[in-house]
Amino acid sequence: MNKPETSPLTERPGFLVRRLHQIHQALFAEECAAFDITPVQFSIMSVAAIYPGLDQTTLAHEVGVDRTTLANVVARLEKRKLLRRTRSKENHRLKCVHLTVVGQHTVAQMDNAVTRAHQRTIAALAPAERHAFMAALKCLVDSGNEYGRAPLRLG
Amino acid sequence: MNKPETSPLTERPGFLVRRLHQIHQALFAEECAAFDITPVQFSIMSVAAIYPGLDQTTLAHEVGVDRTTLANVVARLEKRKLLRRTRSKENHRLKCVHLTVVGQHTVAQMDNAVTRAHQRTIAALAPAERHAFMAALKCLVDSGNEYGRAPLRLG
Repeated sequence: MNKPETSPLTERPGFLVRRLHQIHQALFAEECAAFDITPVQFSIMSVAAIYPGLDQTTLAHEVGVDRTTLANVVARLEKRKLLRRTRSKENHRLKCVHLTVVGQHTVAQMDNAVTRAHQRTIAALAPAERHAFMAALKCLVDSGNEYGRAPLRLG
Repeated sequence: MNKPETSPLTERPGFLVRRLHQIHQALFAEECAAFDITPVQFSIMSVAAIYPGLDQTTLAHEVGVDRTTLANVVARLEKRKLLRRTRSKENHRLKCVHLTVVGQHTVAQMDNAVTRAHQRTIAALAPAERHAFMAALKCLVDSGNEYGRAPLRLG
């Protein structure tokens, strides 16, 4: 049997969302090739840029990854001297994340490339549709929040 | 520093798409817990149900995974006796994928649960918005197709 004319999968929102996520990752990789930073790494660095000293648990929550993943990614970025970690003064068990000066420069240098990757992800829509699409995405992420915070690892 | 009031990430389409994909995976896992089948496995089985005997390369293309991933997932489903593989008669190098009888039953049994997982992914939108959201998703996946077919493995 040869190639199907139409796919039964394109009527399934979850399938389309997975594909669009792949497309965004590829666009991000293309735009940001010079920096060797993944979307999740950049999300962590962005939040650390705006909220210096945020504890790892809150940071994981904000970025939408589980705490183990967050700790691993932060450790990798710390090795590259883009982030550093300190102990919280109020609660010694909490580790707080700060961008280094090199990390701050990297975030600033990547800004245009990252913005282009995000814009290209929704560029095929007319401007009014883009606005509605973003509003719908926000609504869905907001309403499904408790499901997305600690993502299950699915093979 | 304590929890941020608003996240800078929620203005980025790629971030929201990643989160919505996580939410869908969690909903799918919840609805389909009894079956031990992931979304990608179900996508492969769905396409195999409609196009029996499709070669692995075309199947990978339809499902939007790279060929190595497809071959690994198909091998796992073959071990569970949900799929079987044959050599193409026209081109002996091509492997063709068929659902077994058990695989056909599994797809049929999962249908309601899968439909619920997909519906719940976009349930927070009003019906008219759902329609527009699906149309926008299709448009974006269609236009970014060449980027999504062979997804990059990003850490």
